[in-house]
Amino acid sequence: MTVNIKRLDASQSDFDSSLTTLLAWDDSVDHQVNETVRHILHQVKTRGDQAVLEYTKKFDRLDVASVSELEMSQDRLQQALNTIPQDQRDALEQAAERVRDYHQRQNQESWQYQDDDGTLLGQKVTPLDRAGLYVPGGKAAYPSSVLMNAIPAKVAGVSEVVMVVPTPDGVVNDLVLAAAATAGVDRVFTVGGAQAVAALAYGTDTIPAVDKIVGPGNIFVATAKREVFGTVGIDMIAGPSEILVICDGQTDPDWIAMDLFSQAEHDEQAQSILISPDAEFLNAVEASINKLLPTMERADIIRTSMTDRAALIQVTDLSEAATVANRIAPEHLELSVENPETLLQEIRHAGAIFLGRHTAEALGDYCAGPNHVLPTSGTARFSSPLGVYDFQKRSSIIGFSAKGADRMGRVASVLARGEGLTAHARSAEYRIKND
Amino acid sequence: MTVNIKRLDASQSDFDSSLTTLLAWDDSVDHQVNETVRHILHQVKTRGDQAVLEYTKKFDRLDVASVSELEMSQDRLQQALNTIPQDQRDALEQAAERVRDYHQRQNQESWQYQDDDGTLLGQKVTPLDRAGLYVPGGKAAYPSSVLMNAIPAKVAGVSEVVMVVPTPDGVVNDLVLAAAATAGVDRVFTVGGAQAVAALAYGTDTIPAVDKIVGPGNIFVATAKREVFGTVGIDMIAGPSEILVICDGQTDPDWIAMDLFSQAEHDEQAQSILISPDAEFLNAVEASINKLLPTMERADIIRTSMTDRAALIQVTDLSEAATVANRIAPEHLELSVENPETLLQEIRHAGAIFLGRHTAEALGDYCAGPNHVLPTSGTARFSSPLGVYDFQKRSSIIGFSAKGADRMGRVASVLARGEGLTAHARSAEYRIKND
Repeated sequence: MTVNIKRLDASQSDFDSSLTTLLAWDDSVDHQVNETVRHILHQVKTRGDQAVLEYTKKFDRLDVASVSELEMSQDRLQQALNTIPQDQRDALEQAAERVRDYHQRQNQESWQYQDDDGTLLGQKVTPLDRAGLYVPGGKAAYPSSVLMNAIPAKVAGVSEVVMVVPTPDGVVNDLVLAAAATAGVDRVFTVGGAQAVAALAYGTDTIPAVDKIVGPGNIFVATAKREVFGTVGIDMIAGPSEILVICDGQTDPDWIAMDLFSQAEHDEQAQSILISPDAEFLNAVEASINKLLPTMERADIIRTSMTDRAALIQVTDLSEAATVANRIAPEHLELSVENPETLLQEIRHAGAIFLGRHTAEALGDYCAGPNHVLPTSGTARFSSPLGVYDFQKRSSIIGFSAKGADRMGRVASVLARGEGLTAHARSAEYRIKND
Repeated sequence: MTVNIKRLDASQSDFDSSLTTLLAWDDSVDHQVNETVRHILHQVKTRGDQAVLEYTKKFDRLDVASVSELEMSQDRLQQALNTIPQDQRDALEQAAERVRDYHQRQNQESWQYQDDDGTLLGQKVTPLDRAGLYVPGGKAAYPSSVLMNAIPAKVAGVSEVVMVVPTPDGVVNDLVLAAAATAGVDRVFTVGGAQAVAALAYGTDTIPAVDKIVGPGNIFVATAKREVFGTVGIDMIAGPSEILVICDGQTDPDWIAMDLFSQAEHDEQAQSILISPDAEFLNAVEASINKLLPTMERADIIRTSMTDRAALIQVTDLSEAATVANRIAPEHLELSVENPETLLQEIRHAGAIFLGRHTAEALGDYCAGPNHVLPTSGTARFSSPLGVYDFQKRSSIIGFSAKGADRMGRVASVLARGEGLTAHARSAEYRIKND
């Protein structure tokens, strides 16, 4: 059964509206989910540990007497790291080292300066005190996600990273625990769902309240994060994963087909798009797709994703490809071309950009170094990959000398009175010298 | 009529719960407002300019034939700047210069490095294409807010800053327009409310869609911003303004009373708190408050705010004051003490920190240089002042050499297979050399 992939042509007059249709993604709110989540949040906020125990029994079928029984010791994490196969341990540790090395370069420094009046101005950078990391259980349990969320927090200087992960029926994923050990996660609770988000946001007697909650999750987790935003910080609410490949037609079509599959296998709503000025190459990749699909473990998911959401887009040249890429602002952008650094100069909006034929997007998911938590659904127009900066915040520093307060107090007084805020004006005027 | 201000004592056993009660702020959602806002958003999204015209006629009583008639020309902005009194123009321009100078130091640079395999890693920083700035009309029309929101965007390199400001019954605030001219705002539309937020988020034939919307507004504006988040970026949703003053007891009590008033005059829900180890000083400030209150233009607002939400907190020493301050994570923190830089070292969470007796918080509102848009309601635990970084975003750069792809492809393959994602694994494996 051949996969029918949409074809778009940037030279057609209806291209812009076709592209809009292709990219449209329904993120409408499910009111039933909202109601359920609000109820769970309220229960945990008001009844703490007891509510956490009840929901964990109900949803994960774990019946314990106290939440402290749901905490995993550091010994248990270390045991997982010692238990997994050596090649997995090596891979985890190599990936962690590269991720740590890259993220250390994102560390922000405090700075100060004095102006001519002797007035001190600056910006003080401090880490969050405590961060919460949600890790999904079951089939979507990804150790790489533990590394990508926990390492930036630890590099930022967060004192305590608290991880929550559901273990339905007590089934534990040792790779996930090994990743937690490798990343330096401080505490782990086997709690999941909206109840875990609530516990991290409000705190219970046993689970400490955090300042920010990060990490992926299902619709209940995402809705809960959205609801507690303001009480704590949250990371982005992610849409389906996407890849956009720009190819000059000179890369092996099998490689490109597999790169498209690597997004499509995530879920049916994932989106894989290829842009090329070479119509024959688009045909060749389509042939590779049909050739390779039957060999894939996740063929059904890939087929649905490719049929519903993929596209092959023909453009006049690579410059037009860059224009289309900026319009899409993709999560992942592969520049599979001869001179990727030249094309890079034309790219303004993308979460992560992969240069050259050898840079498979999958390398970025695991071990290149940069984060794999990236803005989806076009939000790369205004947001950034998860980073150390997400676990630090800034405070402005202002220290006026007597001379500076005298001079700038006059300016503040005029502006405050112009706004009718006379307490502001008089507060500044007290510091003006009257000699 | 004496103002009764709450007294708290950090040495009392119920201090923590008293403080929690003091800080509690009801930000519950108004479902009626939500419904109204969603309807307006939907109308503007689907009917564009026509809906904007209808709502502007309905809410602002402006009846025009096309949205282009609601645009103000650059000439009109310049005319406002030429019309206002010279001392106001001078003050605006001095403030703008200091704000610009400070914010230029927040500019972020792209960076790249090569690892031992010749693999390129980096982070590319780019400005947003277009930013929207909401400016309230009527009595809360603050020119300083135009400077504080527009200047960081322009410093960041945003090509087009689009300002919306309602002008009910056609009443225009020349100081606001003059500030727009000074800050370099590119386009101004006299549209307000949820309809203005919708126009900026979705775009209409006349008003361009932006990538991020910033600026203060009433409950309809705040709710609309919350709803369009995801389609565009937004800044923080601000709670009531707050000031926390830590004083060693040696600052003139009238100065401190006026500093507290400068927050209290904003609105009845604003919160002013003074912490001191000196009980006599707390009494002296209370006396100053009662002495000065009758002389204030906004005495009624101040009285309500001070009665309902202010507090005088006694502590054992300045170190305990810092602990309480970190617990509160205030928007504004004055360290009105002899050695503020020593005390600063103990402060972890605050939006802006004002050092020494001469640094009235009001100076920071207008012309110190740092931004006056700051995290409220304890969110300084995890968020930062508005800054240039809010108008820039990062893209990760990954360029593997053939050698690097070979080496790291093996790591990615192991981890991808560990997660059951075989398309990821095979995509990486294609780039492994088989010789």
